[in-house]
Amino acid sequence: MENRTLLTDLYQLTMMAAYHESGKQDDIATFDLFIRKYPEDWGYLIAAGIEDAVDYATNISFSEDDISYLRDQGLFKDSFLDYLKDFKFHGEITAVPEGTPVAANTPLLRVTAPRSEAQLLETMLLNTVNFQTMIASKTSRVVNAAGLGKVVDFGLRRAQEKDAAMKGARAAYIGGAAATSNVAAGKEYGIPISGTMAHSFIMSFPTELEAFRAYADTFPDSPTLLIDTYDNIEGAKNAAIIGKELIEKGKRLGAVRLDSGDLTEISKDVRRILDENDLGYVRIVASSDLNEYKIDEMKRKGAKVNGFGVGTEMITAKPTAAISGVYKLVEDEAGHKIKLAPGKKTYPGKKQVYRVADENGNYTHDILALENEPSEGTPLLQPMVSDGQRLFQRRNLEDIREYSLKSVRKLPQKTRETRAKRYISVPSKGLQKIVDALTHKYTPETEIFLKTYAGGA
Amino acid sequence: MENRTLLTDLYQLTMMAAYHESGKQDDIATFDLFIRKYPEDWGYLIAAGIEDAVDYATNISFSEDDISYLRDQGLFKDSFLDYLKDFKFHGEITAVPEGTPVAANTPLLRVTAPRSEAQLLETMLLNTVNFQTMIASKTSRVVNAAGLGKVVDFGLRRAQEKDAAMKGARAAYIGGAAATSNVAAGKEYGIPISGTMAHSFIMSFPTELEAFRAYADTFPDSPTLLIDTYDNIEGAKNAAIIGKELIEKGKRLGAVRLDSGDLTEISKDVRRILDENDLGYVRIVASSDLNEYKIDEMKRKGAKVNGFGVGTEMITAKPTAAISGVYKLVEDEAGHKIKLAPGKKTYPGKKQVYRVADENGNYTHDILALENEPSEGTPLLQPMVSDGQRLFQRRNLEDIREYSLKSVRKLPQKTRETRAKRYISVPSKGLQKIVDALTHKYTPETEIFLKTYAGGA
Repeated sequence: MENRTLLTDLYQLTMMAAYHESGKQDDIATFDLFIRKYPEDWGYLIAAGIEDAVDYATNISFSEDDISYLRDQGLFKDSFLDYLKDFKFHGEITAVPEGTPVAANTPLLRVTAPRSEAQLLETMLLNTVNFQTMIASKTSRVVNAAGLGKVVDFGLRRAQEKDAAMKGARAAYIGGAAATSNVAAGKEYGIPISGTMAHSFIMSFPTELEAFRAYADTFPDSPTLLIDTYDNIEGAKNAAIIGKELIEKGKRLGAVRLDSGDLTEISKDVRRILDENDLGYVRIVASSDLNEYKIDEMKRKGAKVNGFGVGTEMITAKPTAAISGVYKLVEDEAGHKIKLAPGKKTYPGKKQVYRVADENGNYTHDILALENEPSEGTPLLQPMVSDGQRLFQRRNLEDIREYSLKSVRKLPQKTRETRAKRYISVPSKGLQKIVDALTHKYTPETEIFLKTYAGGA
Repeated sequence: MENRTLLTDLYQLTMMAAYHESGKQDDIATFDLFIRKYPEDWGYLIAAGIEDAVDYATNISFSEDDISYLRDQGLFKDSFLDYLKDFKFHGEITAVPEGTPVAANTPLLRVTAPRSEAQLLETMLLNTVNFQTMIASKTSRVVNAAGLGKVVDFGLRRAQEKDAAMKGARAAYIGGAAATSNVAAGKEYGIPISGTMAHSFIMSFPTELEAFRAYADTFPDSPTLLIDTYDNIEGAKNAAIIGKELIEKGKRLGAVRLDSGDLTEISKDVRRILDENDLGYVRIVASSDLNEYKIDEMKRKGAKVNGFGVGTEMITAKPTAAISGVYKLVEDEAGHKIKLAPGKKTYPGKKQVYRVADENGNYTHDILALENEPSEGTPLLQPMVSDGQRLFQRRNLEDIREYSLKSVRKLPQKTRETRAKRYISVPSKGLQKIVDALTHKYTPETEIFLKTYAGGA
């Protein structure tokens, strides 16, 4: 595990220095990490990055080199820098398991730790959980739209640098992508890899047919041919010629790929050409700036497409680009903390999230309750780290993906549509009582420091 | 330099395998990397990621582990895998220097190399140059809007994972950001770091004044105080109290930060309060989901703001999220290559970009000419790699930033506005002659394989 300790905002360190000097650094504080609201049309979120967040938290330490850099800034006193030398995380983290579908405005990770330790984690927890949750969720939307069609991550060239491509490929796989074009992600995570050829390959041979033949000679087992370089229809006919040549060798053409034009109409023509040539088993895959809306429309219009290569908009979640993950103080030794500003309301206290299901085991909603308050439903937040130690090994990626896909199928159908109804959490009676009391006591727009609220629930 | 060789799309490897088997792998081919079009309202781009692209290309090699992974895929023949063992890049790269403002649809990097080597580079060159160019360009827009106000990168928590935060902080600095909140980027690249406190810090003390005082005790040299946790006006008054206490200690309050509400109106009230307390030197900095449009409007309305902390929208270039960088075959041993599809036209051949200036040295436009065609203007594409070897050391980041800022000031004023007029390149006579001949000869929508066009220009 790479040391990411300095990957933090400077203000975490200046706050820690001030806590150190005020003797507040070891007060126990609880922070909730949650996504403030859904991007437009999204019906749920898939929590991802939890495993990386736990790795990050349990591996924090300042190297001599880090401390020497901080000393050179001329900002910090020696006593604080000395304190950083042996700094590690001693707190507890509870979180939903990687791949769990969750509601907005509902904690998916909670940190309880000495104040300075909890504070330091903020930036990198948000960085990791924000991005990976966004990509897993976006991919889940694309996969829902694609129905039985397979979705392949083609995003590497448009990803926001290397980590986004790697962690993004992994998050997309959790969200239901079937494969990735990213070879390094295939090697690192064991994700199936997928790929065929670019237009430049076709253009590197005198004719398209020669290009197809050279490719099929090299990859005779189920090759995919890109047929739109010159003309989709001629391309489909050339592919059919190759398909028949492969049959003579006891092999089968795997698929053709469309990458431009009116994909729906072209797919119907191409399907017909393939079928007329007894190549009914040859799949048609489509790419070209796809997203969930375009795929949804293609399906409605009867496109004959069996798979989708999705690049830019899945790996960057364009136009969303960032989700509104925040990390908020909800309790410390002095009591519950609440923020009442409109649109930025936070729920106070250490809480648990309960998932409520109907008689068929399908999820109806979540209840946000105080930690020790009895509630119907199944608790989602699970202990991940105790006294700074990881409680479980990282789970296998295939298991995470399977768990995630299975869980998504239990969400209300309307939350899984392209223009979705939102899956929600509601506060429990105990939590609502506290919120009401505080809401009446304080004006909105006010962020409140509270004395301990009598007895919690 | 980390090995990023497998960070490529699988299709680059399958194409290379087919080239290998067809004996085409060592044909010399030329590819142009360019940004197809400007995002809405953008007037120019700042090329960034060039230095990393050169590092990447000159360090390509497949490890035994990589080859073993590829063998396990059951796709590739041993002869191809053997060829990969000694694979390296032997080609040439010419590019604009890091930080150069460039036009859309104009090459900012060109690769001439044995076909398979040039092909393999595509994915990672695009990944790196796309992202870094996008962030440098976006930041330049924010910096233009901010005028004399300093812009600080606050994006780490919303960046698309670690590399995006690191390379993004560097690109933002090239684009004119004055500092970053990202401590690791400060350490790695020598970028000034900046930061103060969060609302949770204020909430961790019984009163705001006590929180301010604790912070100023720890950081008495020009501290910045966040004044909006409860109420901006009361916050400003409390900051003024601390400002006076600091004077008694021979110190000065540095700044106050606003993070919510109508920043323009609040800034005027806060300025007045500070001035009435003889704290005219205390700066006002603003943050809260800022972008170039909001900053532009604040300036127009007379906001009294001296600095801007910009997070999400600068580090992700939201809503753009990805720019349209492509890498296109423009020439090989068989001749020029052109693509004529509407909106996707490529200029054929090995080219040079010439920058034309007026009598005052200000840039008017660029000319895209054939490589050996005489042209007015100064050539922008410079040799960076020859026979697979880097020709220059990486340049110092401060020099790159200074060069970039100086170059941007020479662009037409209208290209630097928030809703900008676009800086353009035009084809030379020689290039246009080829394009015309090809355009008349072939129908649009066609991607063309051409025999060598007689004699070029």
